[in-house]
Amino acid sequence: MHKPQMLLHQLADLIGGRVVGDPSMVIAGIAPLREASPGQIGFLSNPRYVADLASTHASAVILAPRYEAATAPPSLARVIVDDPYYAMCQVIRHFHDRPYLPSGVSPLASVGQGVTMGRDVSVQPFVVIGERAVIGDRVTLSAGCYIGEEAAIGDDSLLYPNVTVRERVRLGRRVIVHSGTVIGSDGFGYAFHGGLHHKIPQVGTVIIEDDVELGANVTVDRATLGQTVIGRGTKVDNLVQIAHNVTIGERSIIVAQAGISGSTALGKGVVLAGQVGVVGHVTIGDGVRVGAQSGVAQNVSAGQDLSGSPAIPHRQWLAVQATLPKLPELRKRLHRLEEELHALQRQIKRPGRAAETARRRRATRRRSSRA
Amino acid sequence: MHKPQMLLHQLADLIGGRVVGDPSMVIAGIAPLREASPGQIGFLSNPRYVADLASTHASAVILAPRYEAATAPPSLARVIVDDPYYAMCQVIRHFHDRPYLPSGVSPLASVGQGVTMGRDVSVQPFVVIGERAVIGDRVTLSAGCYIGEEAAIGDDSLLYPNVTVRERVRLGRRVIVHSGTVIGSDGFGYAFHGGLHHKIPQVGTVIIEDDVELGANVTVDRATLGQTVIGRGTKVDNLVQIAHNVTIGERSIIVAQAGISGSTALGKGVVLAGQVGVVGHVTIGDGVRVGAQSGVAQNVSAGQDLSGSPAIPHRQWLAVQATLPKLPELRKRLHRLEEELHALQRQIKRPGRAAETARRRRATRRRSSRA
Amino acid sequence: MHKPQMLLHQLADLIGGRVVGDPSMVIAGIAPLREASPGQIGFLSNPRYVADLASTHASAVILAPRYEAATAPPSLARVIVDDPYYAMCQVIRHFHDRPYLPSGVSPLASVGQGVTMGRDVSVQPFVVIGERAVIGDRVTLSAGCYIGEEAAIGDDSLLYPNVTVRERVRLGRRVIVHSGTVIGSDGFGYAFHGGLHHKIPQVGTVIIEDDVELGANVTVDRATLGQTVIGRGTKVDNLVQIAHNVTIGERSIIVAQAGISGSTALGKGVVLAGQVGVVGHVTIGDGVRVGAQSGVAQNVSAGQDLSGSPAIPHRQWLAVQATLPKLPELRKRLHRLEEELHALQRQIKRPGRAAETARRRRATRRRSSRA
Repeated sequence: MHKPQMLLHQLADLIGGRVVGDPSMVIAGIAPLREASPGQIGFLSNPRYVADLASTHASAVILAPRYEAATAPPSLARVIVDDPYYAMCQVIRHFHDRPYLPSGVSPLASVGQGVTMGRDVSVQPFVVIGERAVIGDRVTLSAGCYIGEEAAIGDDSLLYPNVTVRERVRLGRRVIVHSGTVIGSDGFGYAFHGGLHHKIPQVGTVIIEDDVELGANVTVDRATLGQTVIGRGTKVDNLVQIAHNVTIGERSIIVAQAGISGSTALGKGVVLAGQVGVVGHVTIGDGVRVGAQSGVAQNVSAGQDLSGSPAIPHRQWLAVQATLPKLPELRKRLHRLEEELHALQRQIKRPGRAAETARRRRATRRRSSRA
Repeated sequence: MHKPQMLLHQLADLIGGRVVGDPSMVIAGIAPLREASPGQIGFLSNPRYVADLASTHASAVILAPRYEAATAPPSLARVIVDDPYYAMCQVIRHFHDRPYLPSGVSPLASVGQGVTMGRDVSVQPFVVIGERAVIGDRVTLSAGCYIGEEAAIGDDSLLYPNVTVRERVRLGRRVIVHSGTVIGSDGFGYAFHGGLHHKIPQVGTVIIEDDVELGANVTVDRATLGQTVIGRGTKVDNLVQIAHNVTIGERSIIVAQAGISGSTALGKGVVLAGQVGVVGHVTIGDGVRVGAQSGVAQNVSAGQDLSGSPAIPHRQWLAVQATLPKLPELRKRLHRLEEELHALQRQIKRPGRAAETARRRRATRRRSSRA
Repeated sequence: MHKPQMLLHQLADLIGGRVVGDPSMVIAGIAPLREASPGQIGFLSNPRYVADLASTHASAVILAPRYEAATAPPSLARVIVDDPYYAMCQVIRHFHDRPYLPSGVSPLASVGQGVTMGRDVSVQPFVVIGERAVIGDRVTLSAGCYIGEEAAIGDDSLLYPNVTVRERVRLGRRVIVHSGTVIGSDGFGYAFHGGLHHKIPQVGTVIIEDDVELGANVTVDRATLGQTVIGRGTKVDNLVQIAHNVTIGERSIIVAQAGISGSTALGKGVVLAGQVGVVGHVTIGDGVRVGAQSGVAQNVSAGQDLSGSPAIPHRQWLAVQATLPKLPELRKRLHRLEEELHALQRQIKRPGRAAETARRRRATRRRSSRA
């Protein structure tokens, strides 16, 4: 399964890096610095782990120019690159990528009438493909997948086991869908009339564009009318909810357990962190980034960073969060200030009647602070 | 698949509306105003989209009396109804509803001993039905569904692919369950004893009453003892968690990614917005509405609107949220006030020693504000 | 299915309790106090339900010493135990546990080449087991489960229908996995380079240790390199997200809809309540408890109780939450105080120019309070 080992200078060529150390060193694999053994190359892409350089058993490490002089064993060779995270990605591909080998259509799959089957497909046992569906070349449909009537799966797409693609849904090329994900379930729409919720038929569909990846147990609802759309190159993590008629632009990132309500439109390059919620019928501009657990309840113009529930500009949110734990103390200070001010007022204005007024004021305050 | 076109006055009769424009106009379909083409009817149910009237290519529009005079092309016919959302629902049904056609029991399904099978069912490939289960008339069990032993599925219910219904669970009539949903998984219950979590057997069951709809990848746990109950006509969106021994009253709405903890009871007509959490062992009264991402930690009496985590009355929450972004500014104002008040106190009480005291106080304040 | 009835003194022996009442009373089952009928034993483990003692139809009740004298019908026998919740667990086991009966390997399952199959297994229809997988003794793989190539399932483990276990994932002994759960899906990792998100191959795996239970529709991602680990005896509720390279210590409790981001390490005995989120690359110490809907964004040392988003110590959070609803009122009080103080300043400092200054100050305040 693993490709043969390579020399360090070959690895450096692969990732466009510069070697500091023995270029003819043999590299047999890649691992995180803490877990690497001799003969493997590690990587430093997150500054949190810079201290691991000193204690690693790796023979070499991929790192950025600014860490070239960081403390490390003298024997540790270095490959210096501008983007060590992308370099790591390339090296993992080198050691681990396997060529696609089509397994054909299992005799235990159920293929409906009029299905168009591409070349070199892999259709595993207990897959169901509905009538007139179109399956592209080199598509993998793993065990237990369901492809509805007239659905289309683009070339080189890969569906892991137990994925459900409902009728008429269209997936582009090189789409990856993880297990348990449901694409094209009915949108959540009811007309409340005469004391009952009447189901609004959800007769639209879903378009998943090229190079999208959907995590495990994601739900993407079909549109009421028209289309729910996930744009080219967008990546969606596990357990995300995408409601009917949502559109997501290209190259966006939707992290686990986020939810986007109906008819909301996200621009290109939007990032929703984990557990974010976005209300329905709003527009989120290109490049907007929303912090974890935030709730977006309004339109957001391009390029903004938001946090909080309801979400506000991230910087403002940081300031609020820095102050919030002090709120009980602020309340006490406010109370003390009121007491002192009133004492001062009594002292200045009516030196004679001060004692009587103070008693009354204290009583009032006690009542209002209980409310 | 689509029913034949109809004349505008026929459509108006269907939805109980009044025509303004050419009643003999031919209508071939329905679409949102922005997407509609000539020959189609649009609709205006959400005021956000009123501006779409002016630019639509639709031939006619369904709208409420208050928008009768809104700006629109003179050629745009209008059908005036009191409830345009419900009217839209009826028109979509007209154009898109298909009659139910039973497909019978697939020879690729696995049906256990003693199963009672209703008339005109559709049981697709790779369905498993456990022993002694009862399947009603005109039930659809789509590919990959699992129906456990002694479970019961009521007449006209529709289960989409890859739904799991565990043993002894009972679904009423006209229940719709979307793909990936699990009904009757074990409740999350352990007795912590002797340093270990001992699993409490979950030997109760789940009752889903008539006309309930469950979204995709929902989880409904079976009761420890007794029953978890979802009341008649209640609608549950995708990725919702309903824990053991929960009861939900009739006609409630549970939006995506909400979670209800064990033994909590919701009344009738309750609305939980997206990502809401409700703790265990509380009672939520009839008609309570809870805003998105809120957390309910106490009993709530009927008719209340709540928001926030922990949830407070919605109006109060609005006031808090309006003030919250100003918190850092309030803190500064409080600080300034303290300075000014103390300056005043010094001026009044000890005019002689004022300068010295002020210096000391400023130093103290600087230290404490850094803490 | 139910074991025969037992006498009350036998039941007391089983749970190590002391009988107050007729020890030869026949007990035929267990139920909550509100639902119990004559001949059944109820239990009181949650103080919320103490009032149910007075109205129960149960013949006996299990309770703690401190409720021995609580109001109840004179005929109600009592079994006094220190831990009534654990006692309830034991009694439910007595009445409801069924012996494991292996069903063998269904001829409708698909078993790959080189699979090692244990003794007395139950492999239901439409299960797929990939090549070289190892299935332990007395393992149950329910309908529609997928076990990937070279995966391993330990002795006595039980997978409910429609579970997906990807290639090379290893489950320990006595592991329970509920329906719809996905173990070993790809971690969410991309290197953003040249304007595109490049998928980082996720070539690690997942280790689920002995006695772990995973709820329904849970997702556990495989590591990028190395392993995602869920420690022995840990219990995970429905719809939880566990990202790549996460490690969770022994005997932790992760409640429904919580999410743990990549490379985060949880200690032993950690409790994450429902809908909690934890960011990536942090360390949560042993015994940490995090309140519902909280967001943890930093390392947390052992034994802490946290709440809030971002999370702060629970006690501090309680104080903040108690004050928060008063925030609008505090703002008004602050404003009033400013007015009064400035009036006082004018009165003292510059009796002559007071009126003019006051006007200016009021104008300034009005502008700033609008901002």
